[in-house]
Amino acid sequence: MAANAKTQKRPGAQAPQKRPRRAVIEGVQPEIDCGRFPAKRVAGDLVAIEADIFTDGHDALAAVLRYRAPGDDDWQETPFQPLVNDRWRATFRPAELGQWHYTIQAWVDDVRTWRRDFEKRAAAGVVEAIDLQIGSELIQAAAGRASGPESEQLRRWADDLRGNLPLAERTVAALDPEMAALAERFPDRSQATDYGKELTLVVDRERARYSSWYELFPRSTGEHGQHGTFRSVEKRLPYIAGMGFDVLYLPPIHPIGASHRKGRNNALVAEPGEPGSPWAIGGEAGGHRAINPELGTVDDLRHLIQAAAGYGVELALDIAFQASPNHPYVQEHPTWFRRRPDGTIQYAENPPKKYEDIYPFEFASGEWRELWQELLGVVHYWIEQGVRIFRVDNPHTKPFAFWQWLIDALKAEHPEVIFLSEAFTRPKVMYRLAKLGFDQSYTYFAWRNAKWELIEYFTELTRTEVVEYFRPNLWPNTPDILTEQLQTGLRPVFLMRLILAATLSASYGIYGPAFELLEHQPRTPGSEEYLNSEKYQIRQWDLTRPESIADFIGLVNRIRRDNPALQANRSLRFHPIDNDQLIAYSKVSADGRNVVLTIVNLDPHYPESGWIDLDLSALGLRPDQSFSVVDLLTGEQFFWHGAHNFVMLNPQVLPAHVLAVRTQARDERDFEYYL
Amino acid sequence: MAANAKTQKRPGAQAPQKRPRRAVIEGVQPEIDCGRFPAKRVAGDLVAIEADIFTDGHDALAAVLRYRAPGDDDWQETPFQPLVNDRWRATFRPAELGQWHYTIQAWVDDVRTWRRDFEKRAAAGVVEAIDLQIGSELIQAAAGRASGPESEQLRRWADDLRGNLPLAERTVAALDPEMAALAERFPDRSQATDYGKELTLVVDRERARYSSWYELFPRSTGEHGQHGTFRSVEKRLPYIAGMGFDVLYLPPIHPIGASHRKGRNNALVAEPGEPGSPWAIGGEAGGHRAINPELGTVDDLRHLIQAAAGYGVELALDIAFQASPNHPYVQEHPTWFRRRPDGTIQYAENPPKKYEDIYPFEFASGEWRELWQELLGVVHYWIEQGVRIFRVDNPHTKPFAFWQWLIDALKAEHPEVIFLSEAFTRPKVMYRLAKLGFDQSYTYFAWRNAKWELIEYFTELTRTEVVEYFRPNLWPNTPDILTEQLQTGLRPVFLMRLILAATLSASYGIYGPAFELLEHQPRTPGSEEYLNSEKYQIRQWDLTRPESIADFIGLVNRIRRDNPALQANRSLRFHPIDNDQLIAYSKVSADGRNVVLTIVNLDPHYPESGWIDLDLSALGLRPDQSFSVVDLLTGEQFFWHGAHNFVMLNPQVLPAHVLAVRTQARDERDFEYYL
Repeated sequence: MAANAKTQKRPGAQAPQKRPRRAVIEGVQPEIDCGRFPAKRVAGDLVAIEADIFTDGHDALAAVLRYRAPGDDDWQETPFQPLVNDRWRATFRPAELGQWHYTIQAWVDDVRTWRRDFEKRAAAGVVEAIDLQIGSELIQAAAGRASGPESEQLRRWADDLRGNLPLAERTVAALDPEMAALAERFPDRSQATDYGKELTLVVDRERARYSSWYELFPRSTGEHGQHGTFRSVEKRLPYIAGMGFDVLYLPPIHPIGASHRKGRNNALVAEPGEPGSPWAIGGEAGGHRAINPELGTVDDLRHLIQAAAGYGVELALDIAFQASPNHPYVQEHPTWFRRRPDGTIQYAENPPKKYEDIYPFEFASGEWRELWQELLGVVHYWIEQGVRIFRVDNPHTKPFAFWQWLIDALKAEHPEVIFLSEAFTRPKVMYRLAKLGFDQSYTYFAWRNAKWELIEYFTELTRTEVVEYFRPNLWPNTPDILTEQLQTGLRPVFLMRLILAATLSASYGIYGPAFELLEHQPRTPGSEEYLNSEKYQIRQWDLTRPESIADFIGLVNRIRRDNPALQANRSLRFHPIDNDQLIAYSKVSADGRNVVLTIVNLDPHYPESGWIDLDLSALGLRPDQSFSVVDLLTGEQFFWHGAHNFVMLNPQVLPAHVLAVRTQARDERDFEYYL
Repeated sequence: MAANAKTQKRPGAQAPQKRPRRAVIEGVQPEIDCGRFPAKRVAGDLVAIEADIFTDGHDALAAVLRYRAPGDDDWQETPFQPLVNDRWRATFRPAELGQWHYTIQAWVDDVRTWRRDFEKRAAAGVVEAIDLQIGSELIQAAAGRASGPESEQLRRWADDLRGNLPLAERTVAALDPEMAALAERFPDRSQATDYGKELTLVVDRERARYSSWYELFPRSTGEHGQHGTFRSVEKRLPYIAGMGFDVLYLPPIHPIGASHRKGRNNALVAEPGEPGSPWAIGGEAGGHRAINPELGTVDDLRHLIQAAAGYGVELALDIAFQASPNHPYVQEHPTWFRRRPDGTIQYAENPPKKYEDIYPFEFASGEWRELWQELLGVVHYWIEQGVRIFRVDNPHTKPFAFWQWLIDALKAEHPEVIFLSEAFTRPKVMYRLAKLGFDQSYTYFAWRNAKWELIEYFTELTRTEVVEYFRPNLWPNTPDILTEQLQTGLRPVFLMRLILAATLSASYGIYGPAFELLEHQPRTPGSEEYLNSEKYQIRQWDLTRPESIADFIGLVNRIRRDNPALQANRSLRFHPIDNDQLIAYSKVSADGRNVVLTIVNLDPHYPESGWIDLDLSALGLRPDQSFSVVDLLTGEQFFWHGAHNFVMLNPQVLPAHVLAVRTQARDERDFEYYL
């Protein structure tokens, strides 16, 4: 029978050196890629760790979650509670920012086993003296592990169990829950199973999870044709804060290269006086640590940061690790760039396209250590100026290990720093960047238009392991992305995409004023580039244009602020609705008290109606419960009953309902900001 | 901002010591529990390994699967091919039984990158001399890694690329696929990423995957009231082989204890002369290495094994690691049992129930090493007698580590041995036993009756990672399990449960002759125990009873033998059918040529009909293709077209269709064994 089997003699079959532990711990969640990457939470979250914990046979188990705060060497412990089917859960609530660690220990618990079986014997009336004697020995052993009065107390109980009292009285004593509780505090853990891995949990501040971004080109904030400055951006703050944004993101603020400078509408050669692309970093005035003198000084930047803080707005800068041919690095560190056989520096390419105004860094050069160190220093420099949020340009074109190292190093010192990954690349690359440390990530949202696409994508982002490490930041537009849908210029499209972004995800952003002013002309048909894009020229916008939806955006952001349900993503659930143009989904706050149901008409042209089939349990409702829904956009109130309800949305009026679900049992909030 | 963050200063932020590798390898499948447990295949399977492989930026990658045979130290390599979305696949076909190992290496491939980009440049007509020069340097470097004529050939190509020929001619040379193919054979792997884990694949013989079991009590094979023997079992072989079974499993064949011996129908005290339960192992005639003298001698056993082999039937023995109070171990190794405070041995219990005829072993005693060694020796002894299949009784009541050690040790020497786990316990415990080495496992099939239950359970077993390590063996009945449904005694129930077991799973078994004779009286109402169970008494069966379904079983087993689709489980797919009493599912052979569609009426009382909505792609059919289905049970043929077809099944005639799906394109098989 073993004809085709090579004999693999083993050196005898000696039993293992140590007695193997009996408790098994597996299926731990969260645990990303076998523990290689951390899960993410924010300070104050209730963190639930689950695991399958079991053993052979029928013995009872006990288990603890062991966790420690950043910088602490000592474990804290909290017990696991069994759920069903050998699944257990333990929770803790981390406050400090930084890297927490956790692991699990489980053991076969003789006292628990004995007590469970003893209860059954007592219930069946078959207790024998020997059962009490066994219990007495176990309690005695627990007394040996305890000390002081607790040890004495356990010893007295042990004596009682084997004493001279009648069996019935000793049985009552043996069932004393206080005895069990005290004995369980001193279990025999000498044969406990350690999970063997220390898993990591990154705890960030709340803005890593919930944030509303506004991007603008500071050079476009001037008046009367002047180049905008940090000072002119300050004047824009009331407007931005008035719309309810809390992060103001500026494209690169550094000197711009002159060689191969791009002209307006991406012309290969700039006309004299054209400002060039802010992403062609580095010129006579300096490189990544310098500020384009036309924008102002580092003091102006600090002043802007302070002023923004006064409005509850944080400044986010752009990290674009690439150089223009005029960057000081090109002269000072020629080895940081790739040379071609003719000695010239390799410019950026996407064959057959060439980008001669951009030199990528060579991250694998002989002097890569110096380069990495310098780039770390660049981010550190802006942190020293007071910046705490960075949007990283094209991180996927630099080595993964570089980002992991850089983010780890910076967050070790500054755990409050937030990095947003701009990577519209392949899904696995985007997820990898999130795993290795980026706090937020751009997404495919801009290109997900159909109902099924939205459901599929946001189910993947919120209902799979992805939710543990990837925090989506949804942008309906960016300076690079004017989607085909937005090119229609239809107001319902802009409203609808804004509501989707702001309610599907706890973090989202718009590139303005282009967005709120419904800017929609593409450079060429079929292109996603804006006509007269601010990437290559200064635009001065008339914020008072009648088509502006700034007020509507302000309303949506106030709804987000007042409804904790919208400030996280894990509770997102889609509800069936029998019309492919209508999409419905709900979110619930962690305490279950705030429930928001959003229904959007994806068709910008026609009224659509349909019957929604609510998942009542996802809304925290009983099947027989009456409830009301209040449209937070309009103040309209509807009284609903049961799962089946009718909805109609006319995009010419409003393309969405954002409904607060209310029951008498819930504490009711009153809002007064309806349209 | 860092108010609540403890400062975690790091010792500077030095760049890593070694330059990190750029290729990423993740999401490897199969990989069970982070590589802690092996996946399972059988010899000759085409094994597909998949992984996500990608890198930063746009460079091209190459990757190899590295694998090695049992006992080999050298890796073999085969290239990975990209699928979609950064998913790659490589395959190999292991022949040898035993533990194979595999891992992955991937690297950024400069030649591939250059050639891909060069093709784009050439297509766009923008090739420059420097592009050829870069290519020449890369080919030159490959020449340096090659040797002999291959190196010379590459060097000539490198020369051609930077030579004096016109650009157009050199461009043609650079696109020579032979040059690319040769250069790719000598890649620069100095910066390759190793996956870092060596994963294990257990390769078993085919019977581990595909087997048909028949269980009988040898003591019941006698005639005229005589105790059956191995010799009388031999006389039963033509009958068993005639039904198409290939594994004959015998309950324990060892001497049976006399103390606390159970009487017929589990009476607490046996009458004189009653044979007792075979699972109360050990008596005057010996223990786990002895044979109950009433059954015969070890020579008789060897003779039976030989005779069975002549019928294509393998003998399977029962491993029940527990002792009767009369087992020699009790005297010889008193420390192998748990003592109670009064010095008596702890018998088996399930409080408040007591099983005083059974002493469990104490696997954690001070002398656990000797116990483990002895039990390993027991299995080894029966292997020496020619047994290669073992059904393990209650493995879940012994330590997991014990089984892992025992199975590893035995399969290292005898990789052809097969262990079936009898554990009707919690799902995670059952799966753990499969992960740690059991080749086949009992399942919850006996209690899955409703359509939704069957679909849910078999989807879990075949469409999740469970399929990688858990091989279900389906038993409609066992000596312990006479299900409520079988207690009806209805012939359609027996036929239906047999067909479900035999077509849902590649391995199944029945306990006979109880099953084929439609034995169905429970000991007490509501019990799953047989009345007059063979566990406690000898039964002599009249195999010629008119209700016998032995012929039908033979037909089903011949269908299994002739249709490779039914010999594996990975292709199982359920097809919607608009009647909750009708269940439909298909299986396809690995080569795609054999397709079997089974439809079962789960209602034993009434004819049921409905429309099936076939997943044509799962059947290898195009939407527009005509095809015929031939009922392998009856020979009836139906001509079908498209996904939507009508089905009616009358349980009084036959409760199922087992349909071979035929197209003209497929090679047609002819069967002549219809009912």
